Amino acid sequence: MRIGVLGTGVVGQSIAGRLVELGHEVTMGSRQAGNEKAVAWAAEAGDGAGEGSFADAAGFGELVVNATAGGASLEVLEAAGAENLAGKVLIDVANTLDFSQGMPPRLSVSNDDSLAEQIQRAFPEARVVKALNTVTASVMVRPGALGKSSNLFICGDDEGAKAQVSEVLQSFGWSAERVTDIGDISAARGPEMYLPLWLRIYGTLGTAEFNIGVITRQ
Amino acid sequence: MRIGVLGTGVVGQSIAGRLVELGHEVTMGSRQAGNEKAVAWAAEAGDGAGEGSFADAAGFGELVVNATAGGASLEVLEAAGAENLAGKVLIDVANTLDFSQGMPPRLSVSNDDSLAEQIQRAFPEARVVKALNTVTASVMVRPGALGKSSNLFICGDDEGAKAQVSEVLQSFGWSAERVTDIGDISAARGPEMYLPLWLRIYGTLGTAEFNIGVITRQ
Repeated sequence: MRIGVLGTGVVGQSIAGRLVELGHEVTMGSRQAGNEKAVAWAAEAGDGAGEGSFADAAGFGELVVNATAGGASLEVLEAAGAENLAGKVLIDVANTLDFSQGMPPRLSVSNDDSLAEQIQRAFPEARVVKALNTVTASVMVRPGALGKSSNLFICGDDEGAKAQVSEVLQSFGWSAERVTDIGDISAARGPEMYLPLWLRIYGTLGTAEFNIGVITRQ
Repeated sequence: MRIGVLGTGVVGQSIAGRLVELGHEVTMGSRQAGNEKAVAWAAEAGDGAGEGSFADAAGFGELVVNATAGGASLEVLEAAGAENLAGKVLIDVANTLDFSQGMPPRLSVSNDDSLAEQIQRAFPEARVVKALNTVTASVMVRPGALGKSSNLFICGDDEGAKAQVSEVLQSFGWSAERVTDIGDISAARGPEMYLPLWLRIYGTLGTAEFNIGVITRQ
């Protein structure tokens, strides 16, 4: 599949790299074509990897991944262009952590709204699915290192889009029965507001390489 | 030990009942002594169970449990009396769910504050420990039904208080290595803000009898 990955950070590079490895054609998007990190990534990732502007990447992709910082995501998607997102599955991986007032970070949106909802409202023709924001980049793309009982929560308004995202996640190594569909796009408040707990568990364990598994009665 | 449990709902009754079963003397507190539910509970729970006002229960307890609704907790603790809480371990089990604007509920406090912090600020001489708000009442007091790998997060400013709460939790059946101390009282934002995700998992599973376990690299 042709996939556009917006963002050149650790999350964008991890997802884009894994997608190329799985045989997809990937264009990494950044503010301007020729971004140093994106060019270096594309050279190293090899066949199937390219780079360009946010609009180039979104236009290229049949599926688009928002791997930018939450505070920048709406602006980035505006630059990518509504016409380049219309009708496409848009996986929103971003978190709304705001470090501007020091540690611990605040969430810039929470409670009765979420970033995923803001994106869906701003781009009504995109088929937004929230996914992967609850784990660190290395776990996103190689969950098997944590065994088979950790969960990944997805949500969105479009059933077909969620099914397609679930397939991509399974190709990363997530068990089908652990990709948990928690409902429509407003459910994104759940995984987004989980971040303060995630950060505290991270601080306690001293490693970001963890996840949670849902445990029911035996 | 003598324990005061504030609140007569399912959470209060579950915790108070389990504590009596474990051999503690428990006074259940409510707005007025003679509360119908508290009287019925005390009669059924038998030896060691009593009831009274919030102040009676807090005064009686060497340890106090806040098992009231989050929106009422500060007022309840005011009625219990700062002098009856001073120097004592106060386990805050409450969630700040506000259903007044419909479903899904909002959190009445979140992001850069939490109920546990509000309680600690209002009652500086109490030794507040946040615990148990991340699971349903039956799981709180009998976690073994979910196996041994689910986690319970505790936090607070007083190390001795957390150690004492951990002992109580272990007597309920929580594994010592799964009672996870995530830090000072401000860490309570984590487990409190986890509730929207908890509610969505609950909706997906169709049962509240679940918990999450932290999974690290094998």
